[in-house]
Amino acid sequence: MSKQRTQVAIIGAGPAGLMLARLLTLAKIDVVVLERQSRAYVLGRIRAGLLESGTTDLLREVGCGARLDAEGLVHDSASLNFNGESLEINYLDLVGKSVTIYGQTEVTRDLMEANDASGIACHYEAPVTAIDGLDGARVRLTYLTHGQQHTLDCDYVAGCDGFHGVGRAAIPASVLKTYERIYPFGWLGILADVPPCGHELIYANHPDGFALATMRSNTRTRAYIQVPADARIEDWPDDRFWAEYKHRLGPVSKGVTTGPSIEKSVAPLRSFVAEPMRFGRLFLAGDAAHIVPPTGAKGLNLAASDVRYLSRALIAFYASGDAGLIDTYSETCLKRIWKATRFSWWMTTLLHKFPDPDGFGTAMQRAEFEYLKSSRTAQVSLAENYVGLPI
Amino acid sequence: MSKQRTQVAIIGAGPAGLMLARLLTLAKIDVVVLERQSRAYVLGRIRAGLLESGTTDLLREVGCGARLDAEGLVHDSASLNFNGESLEINYLDLVGKSVTIYGQTEVTRDLMEANDASGIACHYEAPVTAIDGLDGARVRLTYLTHGQQHTLDCDYVAGCDGFHGVGRAAIPASVLKTYERIYPFGWLGILADVPPCGHELIYANHPDGFALATMRSNTRTRAYIQVPADARIEDWPDDRFWAEYKHRLGPVSKGVTTGPSIEKSVAPLRSFVAEPMRFGRLFLAGDAAHIVPPTGAKGLNLAASDVRYLSRALIAFYASGDAGLIDTYSETCLKRIWKATRFSWWMTTLLHKFPDPDGFGTAMQRAEFEYLKSSRTAQVSLAENYVGLPI
Repeated sequence: MSKQRTQVAIIGAGPAGLMLARLLTLAKIDVVVLERQSRAYVLGRIRAGLLESGTTDLLREVGCGARLDAEGLVHDSASLNFNGESLEINYLDLVGKSVTIYGQTEVTRDLMEANDASGIACHYEAPVTAIDGLDGARVRLTYLTHGQQHTLDCDYVAGCDGFHGVGRAAIPASVLKTYERIYPFGWLGILADVPPCGHELIYANHPDGFALATMRSNTRTRAYIQVPADARIEDWPDDRFWAEYKHRLGPVSKGVTTGPSIEKSVAPLRSFVAEPMRFGRLFLAGDAAHIVPPTGAKGLNLAASDVRYLSRALIAFYASGDAGLIDTYSETCLKRIWKATRFSWWMTTLLHKFPDPDGFGTAMQRAEFEYLKSSRTAQVSLAENYVGLPI
Repeated sequence: MSKQRTQVAIIGAGPAGLMLARLLTLAKIDVVVLERQSRAYVLGRIRAGLLESGTTDLLREVGCGARLDAEGLVHDSASLNFNGESLEINYLDLVGKSVTIYGQTEVTRDLMEANDASGIACHYEAPVTAIDGLDGARVRLTYLTHGQQHTLDCDYVAGCDGFHGVGRAAIPASVLKTYERIYPFGWLGILADVPPCGHELIYANHPDGFALATMRSNTRTRAYIQVPADARIEDWPDDRFWAEYKHRLGPVSKGVTTGPSIEKSVAPLRSFVAEPMRFGRLFLAGDAAHIVPPTGAKGLNLAASDVRYLSRALIAFYASGDAGLIDTYSETCLKRIWKATRFSWWMTTLLHKFPDPDGFGTAMQRAEFEYLKSSRTAQVSLAENYVGLPI
């Protein structure tokens, strides 16, 4: 058993935790990162892939922009496709901003390597088993490595440990208010080393369900289709997947190159927000506090804005003793989170097939699409949310 | 029994039917209007009161603008109120257009008087009992007056006879596709001869339900509150109504002057669209084809745009024999109708209290309000719909 001490303990070595560790270290604040999974597991996770400019700016600010700038694909537009009819949303033209396609896996790797080079303490396979003193003068974390128990004393803890993590669980239920919407379907996604079918993302609303054509690079396709929430991967061999995917994309699917999947998974779709995001000396950031359905590509970007706010708050506190930003952290984050939650819910509602016995919901999707086609204002509204509202 | 002949028979002497009669007569097309209710009944109906500029333009074009311009109240803005917090939507500033407060009852009276002066045939208490020959070369209507049966032969029939009228019922069910959403609440409205509480409309989302402060003139208030769909008027004496209304308006209610109601009624909220709006020689216009919840004030304005399109189509046909606009009438109308249906549904969804066991729906209303507060683009989108999308 070892006893250690740090200023800020960070639970979770996903992009939120690693980015926070980096931001604080660059400001000379002492941090320790504790991650329950192995380093290889964290690096192998396939997650999001679309970065808002606020997120790419942040990566560059912390010295992790080199590979992003070399390999990231800058996108200026996306296509909405309603039963074969296309509407291009050129967000560069509409709101003057682009987004960048660069896998979360790559972001994680870049941050990990930079943090290693900076000598930031990061323990893998180190589950936190107890968090004590959140409402006192000092926090004590207990964690395990190789069956050994250790303690880590700190001023503050950041729970960057995802939806199922111990961070949120450490907040008393009487304090926490949660909001949740489970959507009645999931996304079946595959990764394949074939070129993407076009230069932009295609979001398709088809009578048989949603499909999304996206990518991780110019040689790696990410393809999704809406499936029942209880769909089983074994029922979706590659041939069946590609056939259904092309069917839903309609005419633009002639650009689709098919190939063997190198990853295939079903993800449920959920909206979730927990309030507040701070309890005493604990802060939540990223998926630990909120989940959005992936339709608006907001999950990773919200994690980035959370840790930007949190780093500002902690840096101000350690610089001057002023806890003002610490006290407003939760409120500041939630303003942006609720708007992104609304947008993600709206995009999800617009584009998916829902149970709709009277056809009215489907008619409203169609009417929304027709309104988008006819109104530049409606397109600007979509675009300003898609590229990311101001931080 | 009498036999008559006209070019266009119009069923219904509400604003749609009267306006169509006027537009066609001004173009030298012969019309006969048949209305099943009495003239006094039609004039006594309390209905909508907010006119888009397209509607006021149309009234002026047909020579019915004098009293409108003298007595109508031009509004440049409206207020959205979320649990006491206000957001002003200045649509004149946002999109350069105003709306006019002028009761539907007044519109009806102006059109009736102008049509009488023009000698337009309009039979009251004249229910249509049969419509024959819609898919042939000539239509024959059978109708009653004072127990006597008459026939009216015509080239075309316009069903401007509302949701429960015979017009839509004459279209075979196999041809008609309908979309409907019944909202789980109604509006309890009162009319009172007291000054309105402010110079603009106030739409209030309150935890106990929606309220709307509107007016018919500077001395006549129209006030609404959301109630259960099965609410009974006898349970809502004036005192109880005003107390609940002021409670929901919050701080702005200090401007409310209360007084005895001169009319009180409960209206259900419904979205309804029937497609197509033409079958052979029959056209539907206004409520006969579509109903919106009153939240967006679109019902009367859609009726006006329908008859504008229909008059253009018939005038072109009688002038040149070109049936092109007749053939596209339904499609042309429905483009605008679906967008207004979407907007009315969105406004209704944003502002009312709905069953919401998990609180997520209410959170999305709040997030939408916060987004509206923060984004001029979102305000422009609301405003361009509120003042009326292009005709």
